Amino acid sequence: MPAPSVSSSITARLQVQARPTAVSELTTAIEVAGGIVTALDVTASGHEQMTVDVTCATRGEEHASDIVEALKALAGVVVERVSDRTFLMHLGGKLEITSKVPLRNRDDLSMAYTPGVARVCEAIAAHPEDARRLTIKRNTIAVVTDGTAVLGLGDIGPLAALPVMEGKAVLFKRFADIDAFPIALDTTDVDQIVETVCAIAPVFAGINLEDISAPRCFEVERRLRERLDIPVFHDDQHGTAIVVVAALTNALTVVRKDIRSVRIVLSGAGAAGTAVLRLLLAAGATDVVVADVDGLIHAARPGLTERLGWTASVTNPRGVTGTLREALAGADVFIGVSAPDVIGGEDVATMAPDSIVFALANPRPEVDPDEAAQHAAVVGTGRSDFANQINNVLAFPGVFRGLLDAQSHTITDTMLLAAARALASVVSPDELNPTYIVPSVFNPEVTTRVAHAVAEAARQAATA
Amino acid sequence: MPAPSVSSSITARLQVQARPTAVSELTTAIEVAGGIVTALDVTASGHEQMTVDVTCATRGEEHASDIVEALKALAGVVVERVSDRTFLMHLGGKLEITSKVPLRNRDDLSMAYTPGVARVCEAIAAHPEDARRLTIKRNTIAVVTDGTAVLGLGDIGPLAALPVMEGKAVLFKRFADIDAFPIALDTTDVDQIVETVCAIAPVFAGINLEDISAPRCFEVERRLRERLDIPVFHDDQHGTAIVVVAALTNALTVVRKDIRSVRIVLSGAGAAGTAVLRLLLAAGATDVVVADVDGLIHAARPGLTERLGWTASVTNPRGVTGTLREALAGADVFIGVSAPDVIGGEDVATMAPDSIVFALANPRPEVDPDEAAQHAAVVGTGRSDFANQINNVLAFPGVFRGLLDAQSHTITDTMLLAAARALASVVSPDELNPTYIVPSVFNPEVTTRVAHAVAEAARQAATA
Repeated sequence: MPAPSVSSSITARLQVQARPTAVSELTTAIEVAGGIVTALDVTASGHEQMTVDVTCATRGEEHASDIVEALKALAGVVVERVSDRTFLMHLGGKLEITSKVPLRNRDDLSMAYTPGVARVCEAIAAHPEDARRLTIKRNTIAVVTDGTAVLGLGDIGPLAALPVMEGKAVLFKRFADIDAFPIALDTTDVDQIVETVCAIAPVFAGINLEDISAPRCFEVERRLRERLDIPVFHDDQHGTAIVVVAALTNALTVVRKDIRSVRIVLSGAGAAGTAVLRLLLAAGATDVVVADVDGLIHAARPGLTERLGWTASVTNPRGVTGTLREALAGADVFIGVSAPDVIGGEDVATMAPDSIVFALANPRPEVDPDEAAQHAAVVGTGRSDFANQINNVLAFPGVFRGLLDAQSHTITDTMLLAAARALASVVSPDELNPTYIVPSVFNPEVTTRVAHAVAEAARQAATA
Repeated sequence: MPAPSVSSSITARLQVQARPTAVSELTTAIEVAGGIVTALDVTASGHEQMTVDVTCATRGEEHASDIVEALKALAGVVVERVSDRTFLMHLGGKLEITSKVPLRNRDDLSMAYTPGVARVCEAIAAHPEDARRLTIKRNTIAVVTDGTAVLGLGDIGPLAALPVMEGKAVLFKRFADIDAFPIALDTTDVDQIVETVCAIAPVFAGINLEDISAPRCFEVERRLRERLDIPVFHDDQHGTAIVVVAALTNALTVVRKDIRSVRIVLSGAGAAGTAVLRLLLAAGATDVVVADVDGLIHAARPGLTERLGWTASVTNPRGVTGTLREALAGADVFIGVSAPDVIGGEDVATMAPDSIVFALANPRPEVDPDEAAQHAAVVGTGRSDFANQINNVLAFPGVFRGLLDAQSHTITDTMLLAAARALASVVSPDELNPTYIVPSVFNPEVTTRVAHAVAEAARQAATA
C-alpha cells in the first residue's frame, strides 16, 4: 500500500460544534482513516460553531472519499465542501503571458505598437539575427508534444497532455528563467509534426520535444534537427540520459570503479534507453548489454529493426545471449528504463560486488528499491520517496539555459556529455555517499553549472 | 514635413560643463534643430561637470542624427551615448511567460508536475471540455501571421513581423487581460498555413489572424473557420470593419442621417474593404458603391474575380460606372481603406451636404484631413494626430474577451455588428460631436461593453 501523498491531498471545509475536543476528534478521525493532516485552520469561530479548513494527504481518490465519510460520521460535524488541492492548483491553467512594457498612454502605444514598431521590424528585416535582440526569440522555447506517450498514461491526446506541458513550462521558468510555451499538436503523423514545428519555429530559439512515443520520436527529432537552425532536444531521451550518466559518474566514484571497464546491463531500448546507451558510449563505456521485451540484443538475434541493428553493432562485445536475468550475473551496473518488476532482489544478488542499480520505471521500478539495496552498493529510482531520484528536472532547464545563452543553432552529444559532467560535479566529494549521488533539484548550482558547461560546449562547436 | 514623434525619440547622455546657461543651451539647440524636448535629468553633478540625460522627439533617424550633431557642436558638451527609446522598449522582446503557481518545495512540484498532474490529465481525457477549466486554453489565443502584409511595410517575413505580433499580444493583455502568444509562420502557402494552425489549435481558445495579405487571407480564414471549433478572426478585416461601422453610426447621428438611406462610396476592395462592406450591409446600408484600383465595381465590369463578382452583386444598386471621383458627387459618406491621396478636397466639395469622410490609409490618408474638413461635416483617419482616430485597438480586445467569456466556438457577423454597436454606445449623447465620434482607447468602458455585447451574441448563437 503506497503512503499518502501530497499530490493527492484534499482540503475539507467543515462546520464543527465548538467544544474542547472538536479539533482533536477531526485529526484523529483522519489519522485513523489513514490520511496525514498537513494543515488545519479555524477560519471562523462563534460560541457554538466553528468553521474549520483541514487539509490532508491521501492515497488517491478512493481513499479521499473514505476520509470524507469518516469526517461525516463524526457527531456535530458537517462537511460543507471538499476540494482537491492539485485540481485547485491547475484551475485556469498554470501559465500567464505578461507584458514587459508599460502601456500607460498614447506615447507608450506609439513606441510599443504603431507607428514606432515599424522601425524595429525594418531593423530585423535588414538584419535577421537582430530578432534575438529585439524580440522574445532570445529567451523563448516551445514544449512540443503530440500527446502519445504522456507520463505513464500513454496516448491521451493533445488536450489531456496540456497540464504536463504547462507544468514543464513552469519548471523552465522556475529553474532557468526560460519562457516556454506549450504546443500540443492535433496530429500524430510524423510528416505533419515536422512540417508544423518547422512552420512555427521563427519565434522560438529552441524546441523541447516531450512525451512523443517511440519510434516516431526518433524520426521527428532527426528531421527537425536537419531542417531547423535552432536546437531540438527530446527530453524523454536526452534529459534522462544526462541525469543517468551524471548519477552513474558519481555512483562509480562511490564504489571506485571506472566507466571504461565496468559491465553495464541496460533494460529498455525505447526512447530513453537508446539515448542512455548513446551517452554511456560517449562517456567511455565499453561493455554494455541491452535488453528489450524480446530479451538480450545481439547481432545474431533475428528480426532486428534498423535501430536495434545499430544497438547490436555498438554493444554486447562479449556476445551474451539469453535473458536479462542471465546477463545480470557478474554485472557492475544495472540501468532500467523499461517496465515494473522485470528483475528481483535475487537477481541483484548475482551481480558483481559493489553493484549499482538504477531502476527508473515510474511509479513502479524494475526492482523493489529496498530489496535491491540489500545487495547493491548504490540504488537510484525515478521516485521522490527514495534516495537518489533520477529526475529530468536536474537537466533540461540548465541545458536550454546554456543553449539560449550561447545562441546555439544545434545540440550535440558533446554538449549532453558536458551537461552530465557538470551535473555530477554539483555533488562535492565531501557530500558524496551511496545515498547522495545527485543534488537536490532546488540547489541553484544545478542550473548554473549545467548551463555554463553547455554554453561553453556550444560556443566551441560554433567556432569549430 | 511631419511633426516630431515620440515614436522616434532619442535619449542622449551628455557630459556638460557646469555653468548657469548649460541646460538652456542644450534645450535651445534641440529646439532650433526642430526636436521637442520631452525629458531632461541631471543624473550626476560635480563642481565642473554634469551628466545630463536629455530625451527628445524627432522626425526620424536622419533628423535624430542632425540633432545629435547640433549637440556635439555646442562648446563644452560631450555626447557620451545616444539611445533610441523605441528600440530600448523592444530590447529582449515585449512578452514574458510567467508561472501562476509557486514551486517552493517538493510538495508543490508533486502537485504542479508529476505525479499529481496525472490526475488532472486523466480528468481532461475523460471530459475534454474540462480543458477550458484546468488549462490555459480558457484564456489563451494565438496571434498568427505569415509576415506578408505587415503594417505599411509589406512582405517582410515572419521574423521581422514578430515585434508587431508581440505588440498585439501586449495590447490584448493590457486592454482585455487575454494571454496572447505570437505565431509567426515560416510559410506563405495557404494549405500549409491552414494545416499548421489546425495542428497547434488545441491550446488556444481563439485565433487572431494578422497581417496576412489578400486574397490569401480570405481563403485562410474561411478554411480555418470550417475546420476549427474555436473562433477565427482576421483583425485587418473585421477589427477595421467594427470600428468603421461604430464610427459611422455615431457620425450619422451627428449629421442626423440614416444608414439605410445614405449613399456610401467605399474606396478599397482588399481585406479591410471587403469586411467593411459586409458589415455595412449587415448594419442596414443599401446604397454602397465600391472602387478599387481599376475604378468602380459594377456587374458589367470585365474581368471580375469571384469575390469582386460578389461585391458587384450586393452593391451599386444605381449601376454607377466611371471613376471614384465621379461616384463621390452627391454621396453622403466616403470610406477609404485603400491608398494615399486618391481624392482631393475639391472632390469632397462635390459630396452631399453634411458629408462624412473616413480616410484610413496610414500614414498618408486618401485625402488630406484638413482639406476634407473644409467641406465635410465629420472627418476620421487612422492617425493618432487627428481627431476621430479609427483604431482597431478599440475592437479586437473586447471582441476576444467576449468570445472567451462565452467559450464561443464560432464568430458571426451578428457578433461583429453587436461589437460595433456596443463600441458606438460608449460615446454618450452628451459627448458626441463632429470631432468625438469614437471613444479613447484608454476608456475602460470600451472593452467592457464590446465584450459584454459579443458574449451575449455568442451565447444566443450557441443556444439558437
